[in-house]
Amino acid sequence: MRLTFLGTGGVWAAPVHGCTCPACMAARRDPARARGPASALLEVAGLRLLIDAGHADLTTRFPPGTLDGVLLTHFHADHVLGLMLMRWSMAPKLPVWCPQDPKGFDDLLKHPGRLRFQTCAAGAAFSVGPITITPVALIHSRPTLGWVIDHADLRLAWLCDTRGLPDQTAAILAAQRPDFVALDCAYPNGTTGARNHNDLDEASALLARIEPQDSRLLHLNHELDAALMATPTHLPVAWDGEDVVIAAPSAENGRESAS
Amino acid sequence: MRLTFLGTGGVWAAPVHGCTCPACMAARRDPARARGPASALLEVAGLRLLIDAGHADLTTRFPPGTLDGVLLTHFHADHVLGLMLMRWSMAPKLPVWCPQDPKGFDDLLKHPGRLRFQTCAAGAAFSVGPITITPVALIHSRPTLGWVIDHADLRLAWLCDTRGLPDQTAAILAAQRPDFVALDCAYPNGTTGARNHNDLDEASALLARIEPQDSRLLHLNHELDAALMATPTHLPVAWDGEDVVIAAPSAENGRESAS
Repeated sequence: MRLTFLGTGGVWAAPVHGCTCPACMAARRDPARARGPASALLEVAGLRLLIDAGHADLTTRFPPGTLDGVLLTHFHADHVLGLMLMRWSMAPKLPVWCPQDPKGFDDLLKHPGRLRFQTCAAGAAFSVGPITITPVALIHSRPTLGWVIDHADLRLAWLCDTRGLPDQTAAILAAQRPDFVALDCAYPNGTTGARNHNDLDEASALLARIEPQDSRLLHLNHELDAALMATPTHLPVAWDGEDVVIAAPSAENGRESAS
Repeated sequence: MRLTFLGTGGVWAAPVHGCTCPACMAARRDPARARGPASALLEVAGLRLLIDAGHADLTTRFPPGTLDGVLLTHFHADHVLGLMLMRWSMAPKLPVWCPQDPKGFDDLLKHPGRLRFQTCAAGAAFSVGPITITPVALIHSRPTLGWVIDHADLRLAWLCDTRGLPDQTAAILAAQRPDFVALDCAYPNGTTGARNHNDLDEASALLARIEPQDSRLLHLNHELDAALMATPTHLPVAWDGEDVVIAAPSAENGRESAS
């Protein structure tokens, strides 16, 4: 399995238009520190699946035949915007697995064009070729699904957007111990007010419970990036363009790659 | 007045994902033949106004202080998409003049962030600094306004998206004889079925009635571009990135620029 992060932020990721915080200033100086909408390309068993679709330029990034489907966590703008143009493709239909959310995004479900939306329910696993995909419930301001993807002996879990996890989701993941978890972590500790994303302590506690072999935090906002510039975390943070190869640990060496 | 076309197409503009028509093939070979969403930057009297906002990268194109407002014709995705991120700016509020359309675009009117939407009515002129802006009614599948912009002795009319014009709009424009008209023309002649955009004959007839000093067709779809590759038109067609300086005709030389 190869996971390439196309974006690791959200609408409040550095640089925010007009913001002069240290993270936003750094992201303007160094594009490698800028974050696009949280999204990744998963390549496994010869298939290419896009996880979330917030990049507006999907039609140029992915010529016909280069994508086998889209796993859509939810219908917020920064996760779905790119489908507004992709739907008018003249290429063969593209499956989009998504949660049950009749509101969708603007007129996307009313005019799906070449997109074939397929509603998924938490716990109802399905197959795409040799891959098994299990939707899991998350906790967000809209109906939102995480995706657990199994192939051969490898298991990846994409858990974003969410604040905390439903106990059942956390219990399943703790029992399964995925090889890799990509986890929502938008805020620094101490962020008050209504939140629909994890802060650093919440993300840390979830990872301690699930105990994946490897992980990345994503959907960081500029305040968290600024906080991490002052006080780094021991947890691995994803960056745009980062490429993670997920391989089985060897029997002897724990996390060391088998290939 | 300087008008820079940021985009001259719509969602069906060349290249369409997966299309192999001559226009789409040409646009892939030569990016100068590709068309982004119909939009322009108008610079006049020291002000910079964006006409429509379908480009997703507005926050990078327009750093704080480089835009004085947005003239939004209507709330279709290819005209409004860029505001979904721009709303979360931390720069001073940005005025967005728009038609009365409570549905808006997804949750944009519910969560306008830093955008200050100001509903306009056809015929109700308003001032932005020394400029006078008069909204005019168009004919489209959503409430849609054209914009007539006056400064000193210069007059520009932006008439997109529309199929035909309400008789009152056409009569006003024919009486006013704008120096420049940017006009919707999406389809080749003979395009049947329900349409919300002009074909070439319809656009030609409107220009013959209004008799502007100069004009450009825009919002061309790939079928029209393909038709024009076979049979060119005498009407000027806009291209992305094109820069038009609108100046008063000299008394003696008709359309010749005064400066």
